[in-house]
Amino acid sequence: MKTAVEMIEAKKRGQTASREELRAFFGGYMEGKVADYQMSAYLMAVCLNGLEPSETLALTECIIESGTSRPRENFGRPVIDKHSTGGVGDKPTIVLLPLLACMGALVPTLAGRGLGHTGGTVDKLEAIPGLRQMFSWEEGQRLLKENGAAFMTQSDEVARLDKRLYALRDVTGTVDSIGLITSSILGKKLSESLDGLVLDVKYGSGAFMRTFEEAEKLARSLHKVSTSFGVRTEVLLTDMNEPLGEWAGNGVEVMEAMRMLRGEKTEERFYNVTMSLAESMCRLAFPNDRKDFRKELEQKLKSGEAYERFLKMISGQGASAETVSKLDEILAPPEHCLVVKAPESGYLREIDTFALGKLLITLGAGRKVLTDKIDHKPGLRFKLRRGEYVDKGEAIMEVYSSRALDISEIPEIFSIGLEPPETGEYIHHLNKQAEK
Amino acid sequence: MKTAVEMIEAKKRGQTASREELRAFFGGYMEGKVADYQMSAYLMAVCLNGLEPSETLALTECIIESGTSRPRENFGRPVIDKHSTGGVGDKPTIVLLPLLACMGALVPTLAGRGLGHTGGTVDKLEAIPGLRQMFSWEEGQRLLKENGAAFMTQSDEVARLDKRLYALRDVTGTVDSIGLITSSILGKKLSESLDGLVLDVKYGSGAFMRTFEEAEKLARSLHKVSTSFGVRTEVLLTDMNEPLGEWAGNGVEVMEAMRMLRGEKTEERFYNVTMSLAESMCRLAFPNDRKDFRKELEQKLKSGEAYERFLKMISGQGASAETVSKLDEILAPPEHCLVVKAPESGYLREIDTFALGKLLITLGAGRKVLTDKIDHKPGLRFKLRRGEYVDKGEAIMEVYSSRALDISEIPEIFSIGLEPPETGEYIHHLNKQAEK
Repeated sequence: MKTAVEMIEAKKRGQTASREELRAFFGGYMEGKVADYQMSAYLMAVCLNGLEPSETLALTECIIESGTSRPRENFGRPVIDKHSTGGVGDKPTIVLLPLLACMGALVPTLAGRGLGHTGGTVDKLEAIPGLRQMFSWEEGQRLLKENGAAFMTQSDEVARLDKRLYALRDVTGTVDSIGLITSSILGKKLSESLDGLVLDVKYGSGAFMRTFEEAEKLARSLHKVSTSFGVRTEVLLTDMNEPLGEWAGNGVEVMEAMRMLRGEKTEERFYNVTMSLAESMCRLAFPNDRKDFRKELEQKLKSGEAYERFLKMISGQGASAETVSKLDEILAPPEHCLVVKAPESGYLREIDTFALGKLLITLGAGRKVLTDKIDHKPGLRFKLRRGEYVDKGEAIMEVYSSRALDISEIPEIFSIGLEPPETGEYIHHLNKQAEK
Repeated sequence: MKTAVEMIEAKKRGQTASREELRAFFGGYMEGKVADYQMSAYLMAVCLNGLEPSETLALTECIIESGTSRPRENFGRPVIDKHSTGGVGDKPTIVLLPLLACMGALVPTLAGRGLGHTGGTVDKLEAIPGLRQMFSWEEGQRLLKENGAAFMTQSDEVARLDKRLYALRDVTGTVDSIGLITSSILGKKLSESLDGLVLDVKYGSGAFMRTFEEAEKLARSLHKVSTSFGVRTEVLLTDMNEPLGEWAGNGVEVMEAMRMLRGEKTEERFYNVTMSLAESMCRLAFPNDRKDFRKELEQKLKSGEAYERFLKMISGQGASAETVSKLDEILAPPEHCLVVKAPESGYLREIDTFALGKLLITLGAGRKVLTDKIDHKPGLRFKLRRGEYVDKGEAIMEVYSSRALDISEIPEIFSIGLEPPETGEYIHHLNKQAEK
């Protein structure tokens, strides 16, 4: 078997390691026989020379086996999950969990916290006072079986190798590798022993993948590896050149998700992306069912059934009856409101969505390092979408914050021009036919 | 100033860092603000994307400043040094120190130990009982002034950054970078405040640079950076497709060097490489002198002056009068001799010189890790050079060892064929005209 130095040198020369070699190497890392400084050199070689699909597969396997996995239990219901690569205003998970549970699926999503410019579902839901999201294995299983879904975060026991690798990648400039991202995402998700997995790969100014081409590469890699594990998989590529929905923040995003769950009218792109993800999840959960899932999903929202399930979930997780009765009040944006106005008339051409994410951090709604405390109140409200025409002085965005802000604190985010920008489809299915 | 992660990511993208950025980065490493796992990721990015000459220069500067440097003192003599990139049978340093001292130069060489398949001067000289090679600063200065040269090893205070980087590169597969090798060699050598430096870059089956082209790249990089520091520099490229000289080992190499110092006949390539290096050193030491150095050097050997200086040096470093009187006996090869014979008649086409170095380690004459103890007795004697014709059953090599050996312990090293191999010049001057 190759030594650690031989493994590093082989990847430096662009060679492909065997499954057995990778298992010994990453196993050695977990046992402390391979040092962090060796792993980081290997990870840099991977960033520059890439992983072959067979290597990505083997690494994913190593990540799964490094932690506890949900046993393949007969729940009598299909086990289905979704994952988003993250963005600004990205809140579909909050809607999808109760909604898919209403459809008869079991959704064991383990949500994460935000890091960098993107928000995290766990942070957002913490805006609900008393809500617990960390459970023992038994308690989590009970909640899942009771409601078909639960707002849970990942325990330290899952995908332990990924936790160590991710912490190392973060401080060694070795994050941006398709193979490493693929194995990190799937190592965690596939620890849940899924029947189906829907992946939402974002592209654009607010996504980790800035271009559609990069996002498509990641999407293909995710699809290939996930299906190799025998999991039914659909991948959507969705636009993150502007925030998803009318609101971005923490409490305000939960509020917007609740509105959709109650069947109220919400922003079109947020609604359609969420419904497309829901349809994909249904197709994977019920592959022999050829009915019109969209219609049935809409029915669950309009009837109030999905919202009922949401309330039942949060009540079971620690939200008091009083909290539940006052949710709208609790999740409302704070008092200070600064209106960002158009400096000239024209079409809203580009939105620096990354800068919006950074602005939320400045407002206290996000964190710079994992130990930062979050203010769940602040939020951004978008009055205009890309491609729309705006008159000089008209409001483009409202900034709600816990302290009074000055317009000089808001960076340049919106570009306005006389020509409308190119806009197009904002939801793309990868290999529609190949997925089935 | 850039953070460590930004420095790593910039090199990952193939960008060039400024002198100030590199000083802050490597300074931060010495202060413990940049971690080993960050440095190793950076080093891997360097191996794959290279260092620009300006970066190599800046790193060399950082290495020099990380340790103590010999102050620029007026010795009344030119301060001159040489460095070899290492090989098998590579013993010219033992001859060059007393020889150049006789010519009136001061040669403050700090020699190293062997690692990998190559031998080290310090290890070889340890075959002389009682010889001390590690001195305090004051004692070293005194010896140098007394004899013009001393057999010394590098103290821990010189080039401290290089020591840390080299230890890290060794275990992270990041050794083979022209920029890193250049700064490592010159960072140490230029800490000695030299007037002139001769570099012997080896190429071939027993060298770190296997091809002439690779060696030439390193030679050019060394020349560029060394002259940038205002040091007169000559670079020779010498052949290491076969061992240098008749003998390889420890004591046996000191013996062969002593024979040359005494003006006795020695193997032609060893003699010529040593004399070429000596001539280069003289040209750099006495740039205004246009005399025939070769003739004068030969005179120092034939007259016994060089050998006298050698004996004076070792006596001053702890070798007793009895040891000096019995040197030939002490340095003689051990009793067991295994003769490796030609399996067929033909020309000696190729010699796996790397395998010869490994064989010496097997015999106990080299080390696998730095803490290994060395047996100074064993040695190899080469009866035949590349391109010579051999009859079936004729001796190619004699293996002298402290224990009885079986022929099955000797790996395949020599290839014999009906056609003579291509051989040519084995000493090449880099930019003869540019060096001056």
